Amino acid sequence: MTARGAKTRDRIVEAAAGLMRTHGVGGTTLDDVVSASDVSKSQFYRHFPDKTALVRAVIEYVGERKIAGERERLEAVRTLDGLRRWRDAIVHDNALYDGRYGCSLGSLANEVADQDAIARTKLEELFAAWQELFAQVLGRLQRDGIIPQDADLAQLATGFVAAVQGGYLLAQTSRDVTPMATSIDMAITHLQLLARAERDGSGAGDDHSRSGTAR
Amino acid sequence: MTARGAKTRDRIVEAAAGLMRTHGVGGTTLDDVVSASDVSKSQFYRHFPDKTALVRAVIEYVGERKIAGERERLEAVRTLDGLRRWRDAIVHDNALYDGRYGCSLGSLANEVADQDAIARTKLEELFAAWQELFAQVLGRLQRDGIIPQDADLAQLATGFVAAVQGGYLLAQTSRDVTPMATSIDMAITHLQLLARAERDGSGAGDDHSRSGTAR
Repeated sequence: MTARGAKTRDRIVEAAAGLMRTHGVGGTTLDDVVSASDVSKSQFYRHFPDKTALVRAVIEYVGERKIAGERERLEAVRTLDGLRRWRDAIVHDNALYDGRYGCSLGSLANEVADQDAIARTKLEELFAAWQELFAQVLGRLQRDGIIPQDADLAQLATGFVAAVQGGYLLAQTSRDVTPMATSIDMAITHLQLLARAERDGSGAGDDHSRSGTAR
Repeated sequence: MTARGAKTRDRIVEAAAGLMRTHGVGGTTLDDVVSASDVSKSQFYRHFPDKTALVRAVIEYVGERKIAGERERLEAVRTLDGLRRWRDAIVHDNALYDGRYGCSLGSLANEVADQDAIARTKLEELFAAWQELFAQVLGRLQRDGIIPQDADLAQLATGFVAAVQGGYLLAQTSRDVTPMATSIDMAITHLQLLARAERDGSGAGDDHSRSGTAR
C-alpha cells in the first residue's frame, strides 16, 4: 500500500470507529462511513470489500488503543492505592460521557462476537492482553507481600476485567458512573481482604459461614 | 386490543426477541421479524409503527422473563452455598450455548441504551430490579449473621450485578463460561472474606497493605 493509501485507510477506520462507538456497529452503514471519512466509494472499496472487513479493522484499531492506554496506566501500579488511582482514572474518563457508549472494546465484543469468528478471536486476544496487564499488577503486589503468595493471579485478573466490564455496562445503562466505581471498588477491597485473611492466619475456602447455618 | 390481536402481538415480540438475541438488534430487520413471526406487514405495522417501538416491546418481554427467572432462583437463597448453587445454575444455562449471545438483558442494554432514552430507562429499571433481588439475598445473609451488620448491601448488590454482566461478556467473547464462573466466584468469596474480617475483629477499610509500602 502507498503511504497515501495507508493514510486513506486510517481515515476510514478512524471515522468508522467513531460512528460505531456512537451508533453501534449495527447502526452504522457503509454510506455513513464513506461520508464521514470524506473518501469516494471506490476508494473505500479498494480498502474494505465489505462491512465485515471494516469491523475487523475497527476492532484492531480500537483494541490496540485501549490496551496501550491501559498498559501505560497499569504498568505504573505497585500498590492498592495505585490501583485506586487507576480506577479513578478510568471512571473519570467514562464520566466525561456520563457513562455513554460503555467500554469501547466491550461494546464491540457484545455486538460482534457472535457474528464473526475472526473478529471474536481478535476480541478474545485483546481481553486476554488486558487480563495479562492485571495479572502483572497482581504479580507485583504479590511479590511485595501486599496480596498472599497463594493468591490465584489469573482468576483475580479475570475478576478485575469482569468488574470493569460489568461496571461499564451499568454506567452506560444508568448514565451514571457510580456503579462502575462501586464494582471496581469491590474488586480492590477483595484484594485487601485477601491480604488480611492471610495475615490473620486463616486460609480461604475452608469456612463458608460464621453462623454455622450454611447448607 | 382483541385477544387475537394480543396473540399476534406476542408472536411478533417473541420472534423479534429470538432474532435479536442471535443477530443483535442492529442485525435484525423488520422484514426478518415479519417473516419469522408469520404475520403480514400490515398486521405488523398495526402493532408496531417502527423498529424503536418493537425494540421497546422486546426489552419488556426479555427483561420480565429474565427478572422473573432470577427472582425465582434468588428468592430461595439463604446461605453462601445457596449463592453458589445459584451461580452454578446461571453458568450452566449459559454453558448450553457455550457462552454465545451473552446476557439477554445486558446485550440489549449495550446495543440500545445510547440510542433510545425510553428503552434505556426501562433497562435501568430492570437492572435495578435485579440488583434489588441481590440486595434481598444479602439482607437475609446479614440478618442471619453470615455477612457483617455494617456491610453496604446496595454496593455489594451492584458488585454482584457487575460481576454477572462482566462474566457474561467474557464468556461470550471466549465461547467459554469459565471466566463467568470465576468472576461470580470472586464476588461470593468476597462475602466470605467480609464475614471473616469481621469475625477476626478488624474493621475493613483502615489498612491497605500488610507490607506498609502502600503509597
